[in-house]
Amino acid sequence: MRVDVGNALAAVADPGIGRNELETLDERVADAHDRISAGRADEEFGYAALNLPETTDPDAIEAAVEPVADSEAVLTVGIGGSALGAATVSTALDDGDAADHYVLDNVDPEHTTALLESLDLSSMAVNVVTRSGTTAETLANFLVVREAMDAAGVDWRERTVVTTGDEGPLRALADTHDLPVLEVPPGAPGRFSALSAVGLVPAAIQGHDIEAVLAGGREAADSLTGSLFDCPAYAYGAVAYALDQRGASVNAMLPYAEGLEPFAEWFAQLWAESLGKDGLGQTPARALGATDQHSQLQLYRAGPRDKLVTLVRARERTGREIPETDIDELAYLGGTGLGELLDAEFEATEASLAAAGRPNVRIELDRLDAEGIGRLLYDMEAACILAGELYGVETFTQPAVEWGKRAARGLLGGGEFEEADAVAEKDQLVVE
Amino acid sequence: MRVDVGNALAAVADPGIGRNELETLDERVADAHDRISAGRADEEFGYAALNLPETTDPDAIEAAVEPVADSEAVLTVGIGGSALGAATVSTALDDGDAADHYVLDNVDPEHTTALLESLDLSSMAVNVVTRSGTTAETLANFLVVREAMDAAGVDWRERTVVTTGDEGPLRALADTHDLPVLEVPPGAPGRFSALSAVGLVPAAIQGHDIEAVLAGGREAADSLTGSLFDCPAYAYGAVAYALDQRGASVNAMLPYAEGLEPFAEWFAQLWAESLGKDGLGQTPARALGATDQHSQLQLYRAGPRDKLVTLVRARERTGREIPETDIDELAYLGGTGLGELLDAEFEATEASLAAAGRPNVRIELDRLDAEGIGRLLYDMEAACILAGELYGVETFTQPAVEWGKRAARGLLGGGEFEEADAVAEKDQLVVE
Repeated sequence: MRVDVGNALAAVADPGIGRNELETLDERVADAHDRISAGRADEEFGYAALNLPETTDPDAIEAAVEPVADSEAVLTVGIGGSALGAATVSTALDDGDAADHYVLDNVDPEHTTALLESLDLSSMAVNVVTRSGTTAETLANFLVVREAMDAAGVDWRERTVVTTGDEGPLRALADTHDLPVLEVPPGAPGRFSALSAVGLVPAAIQGHDIEAVLAGGREAADSLTGSLFDCPAYAYGAVAYALDQRGASVNAMLPYAEGLEPFAEWFAQLWAESLGKDGLGQTPARALGATDQHSQLQLYRAGPRDKLVTLVRARERTGREIPETDIDELAYLGGTGLGELLDAEFEATEASLAAAGRPNVRIELDRLDAEGIGRLLYDMEAACILAGELYGVETFTQPAVEWGKRAARGLLGGGEFEEADAVAEKDQLVVE
Repeated sequence: MRVDVGNALAAVADPGIGRNELETLDERVADAHDRISAGRADEEFGYAALNLPETTDPDAIEAAVEPVADSEAVLTVGIGGSALGAATVSTALDDGDAADHYVLDNVDPEHTTALLESLDLSSMAVNVVTRSGTTAETLANFLVVREAMDAAGVDWRERTVVTTGDEGPLRALADTHDLPVLEVPPGAPGRFSALSAVGLVPAAIQGHDIEAVLAGGREAADSLTGSLFDCPAYAYGAVAYALDQRGASVNAMLPYAEGLEPFAEWFAQLWAESLGKDGLGQTPARALGATDQHSQLQLYRAGPRDKLVTLVRARERTGREIPETDIDELAYLGGTGLGELLDAEFEATEASLAAAGRPNVRIELDRLDAEGIGRLLYDMEAACILAGELYGVETFTQPAVEWGKRAARGLLGGGEFEEADAVAEKDQLVVE
């Protein structure tokens, strides 16, 4: 991976980072790297996620999915970190030939019904993922899917793969019905577990090369060093942190590839849930190039000076020629390619932000392939963990979501929770 | 539409608005409403968009799409405001029975190739939309689609509907080939034109009731009054503006319905491109409930106090029962419905934000149907125009995107532009 932070320097951008300040920051990066390395060596919770490219066993995943390897579609039932990594990997590798991957990561009744009616349940694999084994949305959806398969005369036991912890209701259910079960990596929170069964099962069912995804992760792991000037992941994490400190409280993640649209969503969870605590944290805004040039660029270039824009692209891709045209005004497009147009827009947008003094960072992969997506996911995780060290927050927890979980459970009659009482006491000022 | 701003008041939230300050703000709302009303009466550019529910002729749209009304899929070729409104309307009305709607709104060669290979071009309608008739991405894609249809032995002339201005290359092409052409509304920028042919053609091809969408818009138009205390659209626009002034520089748009996912994207363009100028403007962050509770809620509740969270839902929907379960820990879910779970999560999230003093606004539709989506789109446009008046910006222009367009055109050999030279002079600090 290649990171170019030239347009984040104070010589170009406001907010921006001076070269001297970057040198000073690098001393903190060295310390943080020591802390991260120690955490990895001790397999500490969270830090151990950076060992996944080594510790994940691709053969175990391949063996677990073997009974459903002939599926014509894969339905992942999970939410948050139990869905976004899988969506990111499978979409990045989608070449149009593999089985389709669908994700049921919401409890919208109308959407769930329409989706289940549109699928051929008899040739579909179901990939159920919950770390705790108790996630309400995931288990409610799984119960609905199971019932639909029963109703269609399909034996759901033969088409289901489970990824969960070593105890909990989903583990018990899998054991009862003798389902293939993969274990969530014990050392990694959901959002840091893409490079494990949590993120790789659908790709394995689809016949993608998951060993190559892990190899990309290993390449990234080998690139971690104690200086941001030598390590792309740390360069990104340190610069994003330093820009936030200087006012860039929003990080607009702008990949120029349709295959990276879920990556932006995965990144948004990683960044928000890991760093958003104690009143700190940079707000991720997920976007897509070139599309969002026609939506968000006006704000990025001329709105408040509170944004870092992160542009991501692959340097090589398969092209598609634009035909010659009989339209005079567009003759310049004829004979060039969609890829050249996309690249021109990438570079033009980057330059247009710099010309307006708006900080931006360029991230480039060689190719958007199995190694490339493994590398990108790992490097962003390492960048996030580094940023967490620099902010001084607890990167691997998400305590603020518990309040709402208790309130929802109370509202549904799942026990007595004082949070549920607060819901009824809402302050109202209604206009209708 | 029903707007509840109770959780945006200073008694609940920080930042929050005092009741007295809301009264003072209401005097400015009255003045802004006079300005908006005058603009509508004079059909001024931009303000005229608020007349579209009256001025759009649904019969003309139905007549134009009649030749392709039997299509099994619709492919919209457009970008930004020429795509997002159509995606929003068609997705909101999707009940799983209508023709699928695909959108080609990017110039990613691999995605375009995979999409065209997956579609049956002989039974597909092509909906090409560009206001100027010169948008590079849209015309490049249309040239590629046309070539693919030719190669498949399909007469593209028989399957294409065009929406564009009354001159320009796309208009000329449509005239040459005798294609059905609908006119973009002259008084409305793309992002304000969903309630015209720009947003309604795919829905019309799909057989949805576009007259009911317009009726929802008319209902909203009738609700515009000179006080935020009587007008839901203005209540929302005024409160969002006032919260931004007090530090809520991010507006997280969080609809609780899969069918509103494109709505959040449409809103993000509306808000960003209309208000993001002169260093001002609130940054939209598009999200989706309940999914993003497992991704963004940690940040919204415990990160910086720089966010308004806008929760949107429909009050009625078709349910889907959760089956009874043999899992003890989840017995409380059995027999309830996915919709009840979604509603409990909506209310729990809203209360959890309020309990942490984070400002949030609740927007409710009666139902997510044709009237409902027409109402929502119109009310958000009116909210945005009001906010533009309060900020004092030029709501209907997007000058900051022109620099990059010239640079990209120069890079592709479409003329001499000094902006293209700036691209080559990029400051670099590369880590790899």
